[in-house]
Amino acid sequence: MPANRQVLFASRPRGWVSEDNFRLVESPLPVAAEGQVLVRNHWLSLDPYMRGRMDAGKSYAKGAELGQVMVGGTAGEVLESKSPKFKTGDMVAGALGWQEYGAAEAAALTRIDTSLAPASYYLGILGMPGVTAWMGLLEIAQPKEGETVVVSAAAGAVGGAAGQIARIKGCRAVGIAGGKAKCDYVTGELGFDACVDYKAGRLQADLQAAAPNGIDVCFENVGGELFDTVLARMNPFSRIALCGLVSQYNLTRPYALKNLRSVLVNRIRMQGFIVADRFDSWPRAKAELAEWLKAGKLKCRESIAQGLENAPRAFIGMLKGENLGKQLVKLV
Amino acid sequence: MPANRQVLFASRPRGWVSEDNFRLVESPLPVAAEGQVLVRNHWLSLDPYMRGRMDAGKSYAKGAELGQVMVGGTAGEVLESKSPKFKTGDMVAGALGWQEYGAAEAAALTRIDTSLAPASYYLGILGMPGVTAWMGLLEIAQPKEGETVVVSAAAGAVGGAAGQIARIKGCRAVGIAGGKAKCDYVTGELGFDACVDYKAGRLQADLQAAAPNGIDVCFENVGGELFDTVLARMNPFSRIALCGLVSQYNLTRPYALKNLRSVLVNRIRMQGFIVADRFDSWPRAKAELAEWLKAGKLKCRESIAQGLENAPRAFIGMLKGENLGKQLVKLV
Repeated sequence: MPANRQVLFASRPRGWVSEDNFRLVESPLPVAAEGQVLVRNHWLSLDPYMRGRMDAGKSYAKGAELGQVMVGGTAGEVLESKSPKFKTGDMVAGALGWQEYGAAEAAALTRIDTSLAPASYYLGILGMPGVTAWMGLLEIAQPKEGETVVVSAAAGAVGGAAGQIARIKGCRAVGIAGGKAKCDYVTGELGFDACVDYKAGRLQADLQAAAPNGIDVCFENVGGELFDTVLARMNPFSRIALCGLVSQYNLTRPYALKNLRSVLVNRIRMQGFIVADRFDSWPRAKAELAEWLKAGKLKCRESIAQGLENAPRAFIGMLKGENLGKQLVKLV
Repeated sequence: MPANRQVLFASRPRGWVSEDNFRLVESPLPVAAEGQVLVRNHWLSLDPYMRGRMDAGKSYAKGAELGQVMVGGTAGEVLESKSPKFKTGDMVAGALGWQEYGAAEAAALTRIDTSLAPASYYLGILGMPGVTAWMGLLEIAQPKEGETVVVSAAAGAVGGAAGQIARIKGCRAVGIAGGKAKCDYVTGELGFDACVDYKAGRLQADLQAAAPNGIDVCFENVGGELFDTVLARMNPFSRIALCGLVSQYNLTRPYALKNLRSVLVNRIRMQGFIVADRFDSWPRAKAELAEWLKAGKLKCRESIAQGLENAPRAFIGMLKGENLGKQLVKLV
């Protein structure tokens, strides 16, 4: 009988998270109780929100528990089912955490259709990141046809989807990403109208060139000076969907925002949101994302780390912006 | 024939506005053209937004023009009417600016009912400031019964109204004001549940004591460190109506906001608004305000400067928070 390798949350980071904050252990395989399902995880999803869970401070969800398995989304195969909802061999998505096997209530798992897309897509474009992009853009920011939508971290899983959905809705999609390779991916492969390389050091001028009519919608994943610069270019009655502040999560002293006045002067509506707050919207979001994917209107790439032991390093790399598209760990 | 004394916008302030930025002049009386009305202004309204109009930068309205009469709301008596809409002796409110007489299109004036309230009230609780409070609270922030509403500049015309409307809607109203006299007015006369004196130097602790269940709605008039402190105490799914940033208008280097992350973590909806954007709502707002005033549910005070020549000093005093309630200049 195989052991279950797990990554535990070993210590709380101060400032930048490091590999020392995690610990790889081996445990006995979990046992599925009545109503539960035992799953072998094929894929682990790595997402920026996990960094927030590692902080002691108040956040939108209960923090990760020291000494416990790190939280995280997973996709895998049912090994044993004690629920009528699933049978052995079914492929399911859930949140079984940073481990190779997990047992969970059947109700906490979703069957996935691998004839439509690879299992890993259900952790990306057809899963939480895709739904986040859909919800933040369509329900929070509500762009109108012809408007200019700026998306930061545009080469990431959420940002890449948000800009493509903006294009589907008839908007001008302008990405912001770090480096030429990412920008080429954002415009060439994802089809954004323009992408600003914030590492080029001309953010203000390049943003002005890419969004000559100002910015009507900002889908914000990054924060910091980058967001402050966008804020100064927002149009009257524009909207900001505040999805993440990844540039800030590892700082002990966060960036202080200079351009709040733009919110007043331009009557901006800025709204923070969390995809888990609106579960009612998930089925519609997933259905539309699947339809667009089938129709070839949504593209995505994956950055794949091999083996659970490499999850911490890949997680840190993602927070530093080293990934292109959805960051995953392949477990089998 | 009398002269028309006027205050012109003489020079653009850098940092704090001073009396030198204005110039008192005498001009011939204006003449009402066909369709226009000549008004003798009894009251001039002084409002924080005027400081924004004195800046060269982009703001929500066209700036004041150098060398022209300062913009401002007025209430007064019709001296001559070349419109069927008004007759001599009618009392009207309008935006005739910092001058003793003005001529305007009849459509730009509103008849006021001095049997219901003094003419000056139509520049305060029954006018733009009252409607601003109504709109920001009820249309933008949308508090629910039992929620905690924090209002900054609570002893001012807009803040005082906003907190009283919050009380009418069954909310806990917590004011923030500078000094014990103002706080006594806010709780004793306006009936707020609590008022925090930000000059006492214990803002964080006092705010926690006054809003022990956190803050569900912030009606923000001030900005700066005060707003930052409020932001850190906002509840999940709370709302911020961003009405003004009076602490910032005279600064060349604005305060930088540290607690943006609260917007994300607490899924806050923050929205800037300008009362002039939603003229459709004015009739309903005015009707409700008048009804509440008649029923004794709304109280207000006025700070009155005598004579147009004292308008610049009173304006600067208001920006420094020297007034209690609505700041007016009595012109006759």
